[in-house]
Parts: sequence; structure tokens; C-alpha cells
Amino acid sequence: MTDPTRELADFLAALSYEDIPEPVVARCEELFLDWLGSALAGKDYAPIPLFERYAQRMGPADGGSEILTLRQGTSPYFAAFVNAAASHVVEQDDLHNSSVLHPGTVVFPAVLAAAQAEGKSGREMILAAVAGYEAGIRIGECLGRSHYTIFHTTGTVGTLAAAAAVGKLLGFSSTGFVHALGSAGTQAAGLWEFLRDGADSKQLHTAKAAADGLLAAYMTADGLTGAQRILDGKQGMAAGMSRDADPSCLADRLGSRWALTETSFKFHASCRHTHPAADALLHVMQQQGLSHTDIVSVVTHVHQAAIDVLGPVEVPRTVHQAKFSMGTVLGLIAVHGKAGLEEFQNHALEDSRVADFRGRVSMRLDPEVDGAYPNKWIGKVEVTIHAGQAFQATIRDPKGDPENPLSRPELESKFQRLARFSGAADDGETRHLIELAWGLRDVTSMAALLPARGKE
Amino acid sequence: MTDPTRELADFLAALSYEDIPEPVVARCEELFLDWLGSALAGKDYAPIPLFERYAQRMGPADGGSEILTLRQGTSPYFAAFVNAAASHVVEQDDLHNSSVLHPGTVVFPAVLAAAQAEGKSGREMILAAVAGYEAGIRIGECLGRSHYTIFHTTGTVGTLAAAAAVGKLLGFSSTGFVHALGSAGTQAAGLWEFLRDGADSKQLHTAKAAADGLLAAYMTADGLTGAQRILDGKQGMAAGMSRDADPSCLADRLGSRWALTETSFKFHASCRHTHPAADALLHVMQQQGLSHTDIVSVVTHVHQAAIDVLGPVEVPRTVHQAKFSMGTVLGLIAVHGKAGLEEFQNHALEDSRVADFRGRVSMRLDPEVDGAYPNKWIGKVEVTIHAGQAFQATIRDPKGDPENPLSRPELESKFQRLARFSGAADDGETRHLIELAWGLRDVTSMAALLPARGKE
Repeated sequence: MTDPTRELADFLAALSYEDIPEPVVARCEELFLDWLGSALAGKDYAPIPLFERYAQRMGPADGGSEILTLRQGTSPYFAAFVNAAASHVVEQDDLHNSSVLHPGTVVFPAVLAAAQAEGKSGREMILAAVAGYEAGIRIGECLGRSHYTIFHTTGTVGTLAAAAAVGKLLGFSSTGFVHALGSAGTQAAGLWEFLRDGADSKQLHTAKAAADGLLAAYMTADGLTGAQRILDGKQGMAAGMSRDADPSCLADRLGSRWALTETSFKFHASCRHTHPAADALLHVMQQQGLSHTDIVSVVTHVHQAAIDVLGPVEVPRTVHQAKFSMGTVLGLIAVHGKAGLEEFQNHALEDSRVADFRGRVSMRLDPEVDGAYPNKWIGKVEVTIHAGQAFQATIRDPKGDPENPLSRPELESKFQRLARFSGAADDGETRHLIELAWGLRDVTSMAALLPARGKE
Repeated sequence: MTDPTRELADFLAALSYEDIPEPVVARCEELFLDWLGSALAGKDYAPIPLFERYAQRMGPADGGSEILTLRQGTSPYFAAFVNAAASHVVEQDDLHNSSVLHPGTVVFPAVLAAAQAEGKSGREMILAAVAGYEAGIRIGECLGRSHYTIFHTTGTVGTLAAAAAVGKLLGFSSTGFVHALGSAGTQAAGLWEFLRDGADSKQLHTAKAAADGLLAAYMTADGLTGAQRILDGKQGMAAGMSRDADPSCLADRLGSRWALTETSFKFHASCRHTHPAADALLHVMQQQGLSHTDIVSVVTHVHQAAIDVLGPVEVPRTVHQAKFSMGTVLGLIAVHGKAGLEEFQNHALEDSRVADFRGRVSMRLDPEVDGAYPNKWIGKVEVTIHAGQAFQATIRDPKGDPENPLSRPELESKFQRLARFSGAADDGETRHLIELAWGLRDVTSMAALLPARGKE
């Protein structure tokens, strides 16, 4: 009887820093910086202050783990909780295509909080983060597309990814990982229903995934037991939350495939499902020299999950909800040439040109795009102009995809933009954090990334 | 367009203490005492010390909310967390039949923790608990039998029940309840898979349900928004976690049916699915004057959910797992005449007579029993003896059911047994707590039920 959970656990337990190829370590440092930028950008952004307040009310008044937006210490549970909420709110955090998991926003808050509390080094944190990415991505692939139609994979699977990461930091054996995944999986939650209302649940999902995964790992370290086959057991996650699960994904090419390096960086500040079409529209407009006023309609040819996630948003009521509106994203691209944080903040809701453009955008299920998804996120648009002409463009590797990544200078510039957006770090501090990330493997202690501001 | 979630929320917001009939208030006091006994009985019982340790490590060192097993103050989140774990571990906490929800173990930890922190009275706590029971039971009924085949309803639905209860304590409007249910439902989790391994997840489920429901309510009070139709929306709980949901249950006879009074008290210290058969076997043995050595076989005629929940347990490895073994429960009844806490502790695993009897017990799906379930939990057994004779008995209202409840003296005696079992309270203290419960409606402050012992 094969047991792919046990195979995955064996791999996680045996994994050593020396096993990880140099490009994977380097990419992990890049993902860490990219995550840190997202976490800082969340400062003062609704609803993040509510998470800070909850941590202050329910958690200890200090501790070794840092709430980045507040520059305050707390326990690992609440640091993971707030930092995970903050790093998901501006929709700039990384995404892995075929698992449809945002690994950074759940893995890094948990490992950073635990590393700070346990006095671990940058190298130990990298090893733990790699364990979290490799486990989480495979678990997301295991649960399949049907899971994602109802469940926010980053919330559900993120709990297990965080548990695997913290488990590695705490030095788990294979048996420890099986228990931790069991205790994480039985807490796994997160439904897409909130999207219809533009409610605040997306950040709640990442906050809880990171914190609850950390809980599973810490309690496992103390002796808590969990289900041995939480994924493929008769009453496990696949049975209850998927119709097309493939447990063999859990053990897919462990040690030879490094799924972490397949993770995409986000370029536009919106839901990743809008990115391929945004790139394709930009391509057509640049190539044909079009202005937004030239365009009568844009038909985006998309995969079903884009319709599931973006379909519920008709007229966005909040900036965050606008990031899930295909029409708004393409409107920002058409009118302003980009869909970054500033464009969303200033133009997503009240710019009538963007709103007009939104009404000209539709989504259509495309068999080729849908067939390639989720391994490839193809962008395909059909743009019709007033003169009656129609232009078509197909983008196979949207900007930020592993085949078309952001360079280190592009990542530095994105990081600085994110930190400046919220004012969570000044230029000297961002410079320091960039250096820290590029030398993460040699950092001896992860304690206090930012100097304390004193209590606000 | 009807919106049963909104109807439920309207009822919860409008509910006042004066609306609650006297017998419902009295039953709520009884349920509170019964719950308190279960919480005290969990002291030092594995894995409860792991929950205490987690709360001490991740939470504040003191606070107005009491961890009952430790007699220590903490924040509401961690008091709810530990007390909910503790009150579910000895399997003596209440159960509502048709929802298959254990309401007490999720509602009372959350409302007590919040009432202590917010300086609320016994009367305010009763009102909040009634709101939690009425909401939770209807939500459990809404999600239906298919939900329970994979999900531990007390973990999933318990999160919403706790949120409703704490929301009432915090004085929510209808809109507040809708948001809180949205934020609770999107955190709802708990899978039965752990049963196969006798793992510790059952207490993790109740701990998280109570604490996360409380989180949803507190964060809603600060302004967090949630999905408006978390139960019946296209990407909500029913869509993702049920195949036979009936949203109309949410608004079932609000204000005229008091579902709280349909809650059963547990007599035997085992999974409630074993109780009907245990009562039926006891009946046959008493009527026929049989000893366990007379009996060749017992066929229990059960509903499908009993097979789903008890079926995975073949040879129990822990006392807790033995509570989910039909053969062990009937073995304790047959050999020792009862299946209480002491019998489980002393005889469930190492008494060869009980183990032998276990091998003579089987479960068989019975159309009549299954058809009546979950509204009625019928006990039906067929007992064959060495002489070749067979006896049959059917129990329609197992001991503890609303039609066959425990009296106040029986509840007092159960409470004292539970407290003595763990030594969590001495006789003077149990006497005091019984008086407190019987006068709960007139208690002005819920602060500190037990005198502090000092830190252990």
C-alpha cells in the first residue's frame, strides 16, 4: 500500500540545506524579499489594523516575534497571524500556477515568526521555507481544480504548508510531519463566497492558515497526534473537499523537481487570474498604438477558474474588490498603462474612464486556455476598435511567470514601491532589508528586522 | 428572494432575555452545569495539557478569562480554546440529536470567556448561550447528514455557533450577525479522518471552533466584514461541504421552537452513537437476568452515521478511542453494568472480559433506525445466548434524551462525579458551582468561578 503522505513526510524530514540547489536558495531569497514587500505594503490598509488590534487584545504585550506593520513583538502565533494578513492584502504576493497556491503569504509569516522566537538563522529559515513551498505546492496540486472552485486554496492548503515549514524549523522526524499535516489539515478552511460581497475574508484566510499551521507544528512538537492520512483518507480533505484529487501529486519528483522555482512573482497589483489578459491587452495596444478611446470591446479568453473567481465581481465597491474585476484591471491598463498599487488606489473606483472601459470587457471560457490551465496561464484577448477592426493577441508566459520572471533589480524596485506605498519602512530601511534578503543564507539571527518604533 | 441567513440574524438580533420561556432558561442553566462538569473532568486528561501549554506559550500571562483546568487568567481567545478542548475530551458533554452537534462544548467556552472579559452577568450569558444553541443547531440541520459523513459538525458548525453566541453577548445588530457568521463559516473546519488513528483532533476541533467563533465575533465588532450568504451562497459551506443541505432549516420556527431544549445530556461516557444500543443491551440483560458470559453475540441495529463514525475503530488503542468502539462500550455495559468515566479508565483497554465481549458485537444498518435518524436515535439490539435463544429490545428514547432527561439530582451527581474524576474541584467547590448554576440567571458577574491556585 503506497502512502504518499508518508513519502512526502520522509522527504521533508530528510531534507538538508546542502540538498537544495543554489538556484533554489537564490530564488527563495528573492521570494522572501518579495513577500516582505507585500507585508510592509499592508500597513494601515483596511482591514489590517483589525488584525493588529486583535493580536494586541488576545496576545501577549511583547515577545520575540515581530508584527512587521507595527514593529512590535508578540508570540509566534500572533506575529504569523498579522503578517500573513498584511502580506496578502495588496495582491502583490507570489503565486504558484499549477497548485493555484500563494505560498509566500502563508509560509514566510509562519517561519519568520517561529525563527525569531526560536533563535534560528537565515539558513535554517530558508530550509524551512523550502520545505513549506515544496509540501504546499504538491498538496495544492493533489486537491486539484475542483477544490479551488469553492475553496480558497491558499487558506486551506496554506495551513498545511505553514505546518510543514514550521515543522522543518523545529526539526521534525517523518512521523512528526505526518502528525503536523494531520493537525493542520483538519483545521484547513477558506471559502470563496466572500468575493461576491467584497468582504474581508481573504486576509482572514491567510492569517489563519499561517497561524493555525504554526499551531499544528508547535503542538505536534509537544506531542499532539493527528490523522495519518489527512489528505487521501476516507474522511480526509480529498474526500470532503475535492472531486478530482490525485494523491500521487504529493510525492511528485521529490528532491528532483523544485516546485519553489516555478512560483510566479506578481507584476500587476491584482488577482493573478487577470494578469494574462492584462499582458495581452497591453501587447495589442502597444503594437497597434491604440488609446483606450479607440476600443469598443475586449473579449478575454479565459480558463474556468477565472470565471469562478472573477465572475462574482460585477461593480467593485472597494479597491480590494476591484482587484478581482477583470474589467477594472483592463481599464487601468488601457487608461493608465499599468495596474499597480497607485493606479488601484487612485483610479480603480472613481475614474469614469476606467469604469466605462470596464463595461466593454467580457470573459469567455476558452478551451485552449482552460486546457492548459493550471500548468500554464495563457493570456488571450480579442480587441475590437471603432474602425471595426479586431486584433487578437496571445501571451504564453505572463510577466512574472517562471519563464518570464522579474530580475533582481525589478524585484528591488517593486520592493521599494511597496514599502513606500504604505510608509512602513524608509529608504534606508528598505536598502537594509534588500541587503538582508540577498544575503539571507548568511544571516545568523532573524530577530527584529526593523527597529522598534515604540507603541503606537 | 428569501435569505434564511438574514432571517436567522434578524431573530438573533431581536432576541431578548424576556422572550425566552422559563423552561428554556432553566434548561440552559442545567446545560451550563453539565458543560462545566465536562470542562473540569478534562483536567490532566491527555491531550489537554498540550492545549494549556500552547495557551501559556502563545497567549498573555494573565487576563480576565479563566482557564478552568489551570485556574489561570488569560485572554478570551485562549480561555475559549482550552476550555473547549477540555470539555469535549471525556465524552460527557451534551449533544443535539437532529443537528448532530455538541452545542455546549463550543458555545459555553466562548460565552464564558467573553462574559468574564467583558464583565457580563449570568443573565446576559444565558441570553448569549441561547442564541448560540438556536443558531448552531439550525445550521447543523441545514448542512445535513452528508456533511456529517466527512466533517465533524461540532468543529465546523461549532465555529458559527460560538460566533453567534459571542455576537449576542457583544450586542450585535442583524447585520453584525451576518458578518460574524460569514467570518466564522469561512474558518469552519474539522474532518473525521483522525478517528481511524485515535488521534487528538476531536479536542482540537472544539478548541478551534470556540476560539475561532469568538475571533469572528470580536473582529466583527471592530469592523471586519464577512460573506453575506456563507451557508447557501454559490461558494459557501453548503456548496463545498454538503450534498443534502436545506437552507430553510436556518429559519425553522424561530422564536417558537426552542431547539436548546431538544439537547440530550450524556449518560454513558462514550460517543453518543453508542448510547441507544447500550441502553437496549442493558434492558435485555436486566429483563432476562443475563450475565456477560451468557451472551454469544450482540447485533446492534444502527443508523449509517454510527457505522461512519464507529466503523473505523477496530481495536481501540487509547481510552478515548475506546469511547468510539461499539464493542467496548457494550462490553463495559455487559461486564460492569455501566460505561462511565471510571469504567473506561480502568477497564476499557486491559480487561480481557471486555475485550472478549467486544469481539461478539457487530453493527448492522437498520432501515427503521436509519430512517428515524437524526431526529430519533433508536437503540435496537438482538442478543443471542449460549442456550440458543435470542432476545430483541428497542429503546426509543435513550437515557438523557429530551424525552428521558436527567433530573437535577442526577445532573448534580454527574457533575460531582466528573469533578472528582479529575480532582479539578473539591466538594465545597462543586457545591458552590452547583448553586451558581441553579441561580445563574441572577449572578451579577461571571468572573473567576474557581479561586486561583497560583501558577503551577
